[in-house]
Amino acid sequence: MRLKLGMVGGGKGAFIGGVHRIAARLDGHWDLVAGAFSSDPERAAQSAVDLGIAAERSYDSFAAMAKAEAARPDGIDAVAIVTPNHLHAPVATAFLRAGIPVICDKPLASTVEDAEALVRLVTETGLPFILTQTYTGYPMVREARALVAADRIGRVRHVQVEYLQDWLAEPVERGGQKQAAWRTDPAQSGVGGCIADIGTHAFNLATFVTGLVPHALLADLTAFGSGRVLDDNAAVLLRFEGGAKGMIWASQVAPGAKNGLRLRVVGEAGGLLWDQKHPDELELTPIGQPTRILRRGGEGVETPYRLPAGHPEGYLEAFGTLYAEAAGIVRRFREKADSDGKMVVPTVSDGLAGMHFIAAGVKSHEGGAVWIRL
Amino acid sequence: MRLKLGMVGGGKGAFIGGVHRIAARLDGHWDLVAGAFSSDPERAAQSAVDLGIAAERSYDSFAAMAKAEAARPDGIDAVAIVTPNHLHAPVATAFLRAGIPVICDKPLASTVEDAEALVRLVTETGLPFILTQTYTGYPMVREARALVAADRIGRVRHVQVEYLQDWLAEPVERGGQKQAAWRTDPAQSGVGGCIADIGTHAFNLATFVTGLVPHALLADLTAFGSGRVLDDNAAVLLRFEGGAKGMIWASQVAPGAKNGLRLRVVGEAGGLLWDQKHPDELELTPIGQPTRILRRGGEGVETPYRLPAGHPEGYLEAFGTLYAEAAGIVRRFREKADSDGKMVVPTVSDGLAGMHFIAAGVKSHEGGAVWIRL
Amino acid sequence: MRLKLGMVGGGKGAFIGGVHRIAARLDGHWDLVAGAFSSDPERAAQSAVDLGIAAERSYDSFAAMAKAEAARPDGIDAVAIVTPNHLHAPVATAFLRAGIPVICDKPLASTVEDAEALVRLVTETGLPFILTQTYTGYPMVREARALVAADRIGRVRHVQVEYLQDWLAEPVERGGQKQAAWRTDPAQSGVGGCIADIGTHAFNLATFVTGLVPHALLADLTAFGSGRVLDDNAAVLLRFEGGAKGMIWASQVAPGAKNGLRLRVVGEAGGLLWDQKHPDELELTPIGQPTRILRRGGEGVETPYRLPAGHPEGYLEAFGTLYAEAAGIVRRFREKADSDGKMVVPTVSDGLAGMHFIAAGVKSHEGGAVWIRL
Amino acid sequence: MRLKLGMVGGGKGAFIGGVHRIAARLDGHWDLVAGAFSSDPERAAQSAVDLGIAAERSYDSFAAMAKAEAARPDGIDAVAIVTPNHLHAPVATAFLRAGIPVICDKPLASTVEDAEALVRLVTETGLPFILTQTYTGYPMVREARALVAADRIGRVRHVQVEYLQDWLAEPVERGGQKQAAWRTDPAQSGVGGCIADIGTHAFNLATFVTGLVPHALLADLTAFGSGRVLDDNAAVLLRFEGGAKGMIWASQVAPGAKNGLRLRVVGEAGGLLWDQKHPDELELTPIGQPTRILRRGGEGVETPYRLPAGHPEGYLEAFGTLYAEAAGIVRRFREKADSDGKMVVPTVSDGLAGMHFIAAGVKSHEGGAVWIRL
Repeated sequence: MRLKLGMVGGGKGAFIGGVHRIAARLDGHWDLVAGAFSSDPERAAQSAVDLGIAAERSYDSFAAMAKAEAARPDGIDAVAIVTPNHLHAPVATAFLRAGIPVICDKPLASTVEDAEALVRLVTETGLPFILTQTYTGYPMVREARALVAADRIGRVRHVQVEYLQDWLAEPVERGGQKQAAWRTDPAQSGVGGCIADIGTHAFNLATFVTGLVPHALLADLTAFGSGRVLDDNAAVLLRFEGGAKGMIWASQVAPGAKNGLRLRVVGEAGGLLWDQKHPDELELTPIGQPTRILRRGGEGVETPYRLPAGHPEGYLEAFGTLYAEAAGIVRRFREKADSDGKMVVPTVSDGLAGMHFIAAGVKSHEGGAVWIRL
Repeated sequence: MRLKLGMVGGGKGAFIGGVHRIAARLDGHWDLVAGAFSSDPERAAQSAVDLGIAAERSYDSFAAMAKAEAARPDGIDAVAIVTPNHLHAPVATAFLRAGIPVICDKPLASTVEDAEALVRLVTETGLPFILTQTYTGYPMVREARALVAADRIGRVRHVQVEYLQDWLAEPVERGGQKQAAWRTDPAQSGVGGCIADIGTHAFNLATFVTGLVPHALLADLTAFGSGRVLDDNAAVLLRFEGGAKGMIWASQVAPGAKNGLRLRVVGEAGGLLWDQKHPDELELTPIGQPTRILRRGGEGVETPYRLPAGHPEGYLEAFGTLYAEAAGIVRRFREKADSDGKMVVPTVSDGLAGMHFIAAGVKSHEGGAVWIRL
Repeated sequence: MRLKLGMVGGGKGAFIGGVHRIAARLDGHWDLVAGAFSSDPERAAQSAVDLGIAAERSYDSFAAMAKAEAARPDGIDAVAIVTPNHLHAPVATAFLRAGIPVICDKPLASTVEDAEALVRLVTETGLPFILTQTYTGYPMVREARALVAADRIGRVRHVQVEYLQDWLAEPVERGGQKQAAWRTDPAQSGVGGCIADIGTHAFNLATFVTGLVPHALLADLTAFGSGRVLDDNAAVLLRFEGGAKGMIWASQVAPGAKNGLRLRVVGEAGGLLWDQKHPDELELTPIGQPTRILRRGGEGVETPYRLPAGHPEGYLEAFGTLYAEAAGIVRRFREKADSDGKMVVPTVSDGLAGMHFIAAGVKSHEGGAVWIRL
Repeated sequence: MRLKLGMVGGGKGAFIGGVHRIAARLDGHWDLVAGAFSSDPERAAQSAVDLGIAAERSYDSFAAMAKAEAARPDGIDAVAIVTPNHLHAPVATAFLRAGIPVICDKPLASTVEDAEALVRLVTETGLPFILTQTYTGYPMVREARALVAADRIGRVRHVQVEYLQDWLAEPVERGGQKQAAWRTDPAQSGVGGCIADIGTHAFNLATFVTGLVPHALLADLTAFGSGRVLDDNAAVLLRFEGGAKGMIWASQVAPGAKNGLRLRVVGEAGGLLWDQKHPDELELTPIGQPTRILRRGGEGVETPYRLPAGHPEGYLEAFGTLYAEAAGIVRRFREKADSDGKMVVPTVSDGLAGMHFIAAGVKSHEGGAVWIRL
């Protein structure tokens, strides 16, 4: 039986809402049946029509939607939040209070305080909360995590993540590029620019794969774009409990780089290398042996997948996996079944960790790129 | 408004039916509402339940389904045929005769004669017919085709395609591997093995991108697998009208190769290189200039896409594009609108070309690997 | 103690002579002490001065040089022949008759008859004869050969070689490009163009690595360049004793390809992939296991080398290895020591095999691309 | 006319001396005629015999050699210093005082003070001094430098260098691995481990290509190897005059990495990417255009080279280029010719910059990974 999905945000002209809808459709677990697609009533209504949503389930406000859907016998099973970042927390709060599970785009909130409040609310309500840190959905990222957990590369010594884009290399925000405009505006994006937008993905990937607990960071942030206030380039050093180290380089001004996300994990007994350019491959080198190319669907790889090896899966499949897992979590919740204890998909606590990362990074930067405890 | 899709084949335990369903869902153009999912009535019914199909629209036979759906006011807008190969032609015939557009998995038929009959029937009925040659849906394959058509590499001199798999390297058909069993059985697969199963994809890709018209081929087919009757390795030479040449190497016994599909086009004024290992990239070398890496969504690339450059799209997105285009074709058909004249997605005539390729290849082989006119 | 090297050809303005000299110097086994560097006496003398050769050992003709060096107590230990192709056989003959070992650039001769005569002469004289098929000197090509010989990939089923260049894509021979002029002139190059110039390298690589004995071939040769007589593009099918198959694509008109030499070997129990773009790597896939990247100097690789893994060796090092081995062979010859029985470097019989390949290819082509027994 | 080379260090059992000898031979500019190959007289003498050096020019001490060679009418034109690091400065001092040009392996010295003294001595004597920072000899590294200098990527914003090895992942120094033993011993290697051994190469590459002047750094050094005192992993942040930033990750404990040296330069108008895994390629992305693969010897590349594009050159060729340039510098010096003003090969001042880098890195580390002015 399919689950019923509602959506807040994602109306005409928006980008990430469409990606969520594809991801939700991919494996056939969800039907989109309700939405507050825009704060502009006309655009909200038109979007609902375009998406085939019944008029009565197209709402002008997220508050009205939370209330109405909670009251319906056939109300939504979960809401997907794809609004601008500063609305994530209030929308999530409204739906959680209405007893509705949440699937929320990252970042979790605009401030650490809001994020902490959400963590408390999720704990109190016991409701499912899924944070769509997309890269955690890649099969070979999960394989990497599983290999680390299974001690295949020994204790982790160093983790390195690069996340590079080039779309802000020129000051496109001045030319009316809407995505660039809100991302470079502190009023809409908060204190962090690049470190918040993509640095958090790099940070999440590092901890997701290694399981390491960070205890300090140092960030050298730069706003290279002419007239830009928020950072568009972030160099971050990390220290983890137990002595491991890490480095993140995130940049939005690196010509030639297109969502260039690359991870290297150095362990005492082996190493891993993964690159979003060919996400179906993972290089594993056990010390003293040749490097092996592990392939999704290929020999020696256990992580589930949709297609045979060599027929590439990509970003939408990774995203779809998060929605498939969200379906499983919501179904178990509704059936009051115990979780299987193997929660892989990121949740509200991961979102809080991301907010701590951003806050600490900005604080480090303001102190002149000094060490900050996490 | 979504279109209504029916499906023949693709019940529990089948593989390609599930891929079609994902592809159909991906862009939200189709709802699966009816099906004859298996020739085994029980399995058909259970599959319908699993897929959320109303019992009244779950059929025991494709013939019954074609008749019933044609009679319903809310009958399906198209049928997807995902049966074993030898049923493609009879099923397609039944639905075309019932006035229902067809989306058919490749190969088109089991014999050239059946394929020719289908071409005639499609011409007579004027119905839309889409052949899911998946690789033609990759954005950078289309970009390659567009570059050739726009004369960016000049007159094509040579086209080279490699399609390599390794799953038949060992005689797995003896161990009960079902996919291997029917593919190595002449009774179920016809006269061609590897040349039919993946050689046709290579051939289709070569002609799709270059627009060249083949006039002769020579095929050296081999059955390396112990006790195997059908070829599992095919070396093919091609000659095209106008003097261009081509080579295809297709193999299902190449260890380390996982759907390794690779295309190189040599033109008088430039060259192209594409590899399914990183389908979002296309190398273009204009003579006398450095090689350029064209990227889906990147600079200088016009072909439409779903995601920004660097967030990889893959096989399912390519497949989904065929379904999205099928939706457009069916809508225009229903609205009696003229086609836009830019039919890109393969159709019944491409299927016939594939059947000629297989037949000529086998004939060449039987003659001792000699030249055969196409 | 260093050996004394003489050289025929390679005067000012020549290309390959300089490469031989670097290769000879690389490991310090040879001193160049004599030469007939040009058939033009003035250029010969000037070249000798430039190369620091004593005037008395600079010769006007190879015949004079062979005679004089054979008579000197401190005469050369070997001669390197780097003349235009049609002189290889007469020069080699002169030095062999004078009792001097030969290091000869490929091809061995202009005709099969001349090549056969050389094979006989080498057998009669018992003199060392090294044919500089450079690609056989790459460490990972040798590792590939060793892996096949050690049965690591089982019986070979198919071997595929691509050798692609782009420098003849346009008719540069008309613009006075000297290298292009002689290579496209049947009077200077013989019956084969691309098939002789680089096709033989591909053929040699295929047989060197696999040890397979070819028994038939079919060649579809094309002269794409406007006004060109000799082929600049060659598609070749091969059949080997024992049932293995092969394909070669050699082209000199492929834009974007720069000495793009690539080898894939398909065995019953595993596969190999090597590409000159990164010659220090070899992909080995044992059936049922992940692909391993074997690296020169890395784990599990026995072939000798000069530098630690990761510090790339290239073409000159491969060439230098042939000279180093030539030194070992000549030293053992002078000491009347037995060979160690592990002759790896190509010799006169490999040169004859190459001549047979060219002759059969051209014959196949003239018959309309038909099968020819080797 | 060839130049005469002497060598200090590089006797039997040493590694880098052999590499210098190959590099010196490669282009035929140098003859090795004298040496103090070892501090052990017997090994020194035997090495001289092996290398074909006249007994009278085999010395027991570098001091004796400097004196004797300076006095000979046919004395050496330059000395190559390939001793353990702590002897670089005293040996160089001795030869400079004797009026003999120096080719010195890196690092320049053991301390900043010694390095500064050498800079003064070179200035006073006016003698040529070449520091063999090998990676600066790669053609495409030079092309990168030339592109930056020609403003092809605009003002540099960020430079990123990774230099990864894995040979110290396990505590091999305890097992008697000689190279590991001295590199992990502060008494022989000084205060820096990985940061000195390979971090300096990364630093040199960053400044060589960009021309940026560093003004501060921060280093987080770690000794992961059990019982190890010196760092084997270094994370470094850099700040340059004018506002550019940089990051270096150097590690000797990264399984799977084999001299993995990789450089990315981010400029206002374009980006560059170079990787030692395929040193003949350089990716150039002008903003708003597709990435171009520039190839040594290929279209649009001016930097000189030895071989046509596609025939790979590697580390030894890069090293050989430094020796070829050293020959040019020494010849101009002897002829009292003016330099051509385009000194590319690193010299004593680059060595001093490297020593400052190490000293500042260690000081930063000792302060708890804090910023240090350079």
